[in-house]
Amino acid sequence: MADKILVFGAGGVGCIYAALLERGGASVTAVCRTNYAAVKENGLLIRSAKWGHIRTRPQAVRTVSEAASHGPFDYILVCSKAFPGTAALIKDAVTLGKTAIALAQNGIAIENEYAELYPQNTIISGVVYLPTTQVSPGIVEHGAPLEIFELGTFPHKASDEAKAQTKRLSELFLAGGSNAPVHDGDIQERRWNKLSLNASLNPITALTLCDDANFIRSSDHALDMIKNVMSEVGSIAAAAGHPNAVSKESIDDHMKRHVERLETGGKEPSMLVDIRNNRQIEVEAILGNTVRKAEELNVEVPYLKMLYVLAKARDFATMKNDQWKPIATVS
Amino acid sequence: MADKILVFGAGGVGCIYAALLERGGASVTAVCRTNYAAVKENGLLIRSAKWGHIRTRPQAVRTVSEAASHGPFDYILVCSKAFPGTAALIKDAVTLGKTAIALAQNGIAIENEYAELYPQNTIISGVVYLPTTQVSPGIVEHGAPLEIFELGTFPHKASDEAKAQTKRLSELFLAGGSNAPVHDGDIQERRWNKLSLNASLNPITALTLCDDANFIRSSDHALDMIKNVMSEVGSIAAAAGHPNAVSKESIDDHMKRHVERLETGGKEPSMLVDIRNNRQIEVEAILGNTVRKAEELNVEVPYLKMLYVLAKARDFATMKNDQWKPIATVS
Repeated sequence: MADKILVFGAGGVGCIYAALLERGGASVTAVCRTNYAAVKENGLLIRSAKWGHIRTRPQAVRTVSEAASHGPFDYILVCSKAFPGTAALIKDAVTLGKTAIALAQNGIAIENEYAELYPQNTIISGVVYLPTTQVSPGIVEHGAPLEIFELGTFPHKASDEAKAQTKRLSELFLAGGSNAPVHDGDIQERRWNKLSLNASLNPITALTLCDDANFIRSSDHALDMIKNVMSEVGSIAAAAGHPNAVSKESIDDHMKRHVERLETGGKEPSMLVDIRNNRQIEVEAILGNTVRKAEELNVEVPYLKMLYVLAKARDFATMKNDQWKPIATVS
Repeated sequence: MADKILVFGAGGVGCIYAALLERGGASVTAVCRTNYAAVKENGLLIRSAKWGHIRTRPQAVRTVSEAASHGPFDYILVCSKAFPGTAALIKDAVTLGKTAIALAQNGIAIENEYAELYPQNTIISGVVYLPTTQVSPGIVEHGAPLEIFELGTFPHKASDEAKAQTKRLSELFLAGGSNAPVHDGDIQERRWNKLSLNASLNPITALTLCDDANFIRSSDHALDMIKNVMSEVGSIAAAAGHPNAVSKESIDDHMKRHVERLETGGKEPSMLVDIRNNRQIEVEAILGNTVRKAEELNVEVPYLKMLYVLAKARDFATMKNDQWKPIATVS
């Protein structure tokens, strides 16, 4: 019988992974929000520089509890943005001791709340490089051939069953055409490396309203500032036991892509896109958890701290929860 | 004969000072931009919590060269925002060796370009506390009674004539009802103190789109971050020979006003107002010169550096000069 997979979060990444997994032989259910009607009616269309056009038709549902009737699930693939509290949202679709929960998200320490809530379940941590945009409901553009989805258990040392579930998920992805290897070492090393990119470029572009290329162009100090923030992430990673996660070479490698865009025109990182659309940004997953880890390990990270405080406030100005108060007006 | 004064920049501060100087007995000409027609027709109306209503009618002109025919001027009071290159704009109205140039502006090292361009003229540096808004052309609201304008020569050691010109300007202001003393010591000490406020709250609120109170409310780290930036300014000031310019007490004093607004609703610092209106912000006067001074004196100021780089980029995104390039679009 086909593996049953629930994809939670049908944005650009979620749609592509739902399509690839279905192509790889799995039976896929997708929790859709605003694109529910379109996906239910027409399925998914992926237009990709890597795979060409892919059309698939996952089982579209509106809620996790609606999804539960299509279970029990072998895997839940979490493709939503990483906000605190997301672990609880998938509860109705988790079969205790059976469903492996795989996270396709940015940030650091995002696995903890899943491990706490589902201690009997396998947690698979995934590090995604997949620049993509859902251009209209159910239609996803993947304009550059870049796609990597590295997998590993959380924590690194896990049961044989957990390792086998991770390997099986990788195989389904590979069968669908994805570049989704199980990482040899501790996947956290790769997570820290990805974080060096997300914790610098994402908040910097979101706060300045510059895409990557225009930010680099904005002053003589801009490029070095990105690299300095990346180095701070590397210092925390090293203190956390991953001395090779971020290196001068990995920083230069990442930045090469962005510097090249000085010629061709820049790109807008996801957090900048979120800010432009007045959407919540992943402050805690990308900056809050990072700064807290630095404090725990006594690593000085002034640039990250400043970005955290600013991004937190910028998010507050977007979301305006009930703590927000209007300004005083002149009498 | 009445002292002839040119006010350059007829925003909120410029309008109030033009009115006070005229009330103090001076003959005032004001360079107006968008409010020219209104000021020419109806003069100025100041509605103030300190002075009540003041109506005056300065000589309104559109340009500095038009102003020149109303000279020669004893003083030019520069009330425009402090942008690099402003010194050259007033050239046509400066009588070499006669006109004293008084700056009513924020920032640090803003006097240098005036001293270089007009080496024979007295430069008076002023530190302003005057929260105000021009609510419609020529009509200015001054909602709180706060007003201080401390004066001193630039540099501190200056000729007897320069000292006398500074004293005379102070007397004109005092006659008009202003709290405008000549500062006992080096006015740069007061400038650094004011800068501690401007270099922290201005860019922080501009980048986050939070007014002062909402920023403080945005996270547990917010208030301390402001204080940390203020401390960095204090460290530079100390290295520059002003060890008493910024102290724990002066920081707490400044922040007290902002913390009180947690109850009454916040206020938007001028740089935030500028950002909201897509106007150029005073990045170089407030942050660029400060960071360069820190580098010159080998003072570590990571928070100020981050704010400088971000504010520079945010300004680039607003002004979009010919260096700005559009983003690449998906094929």
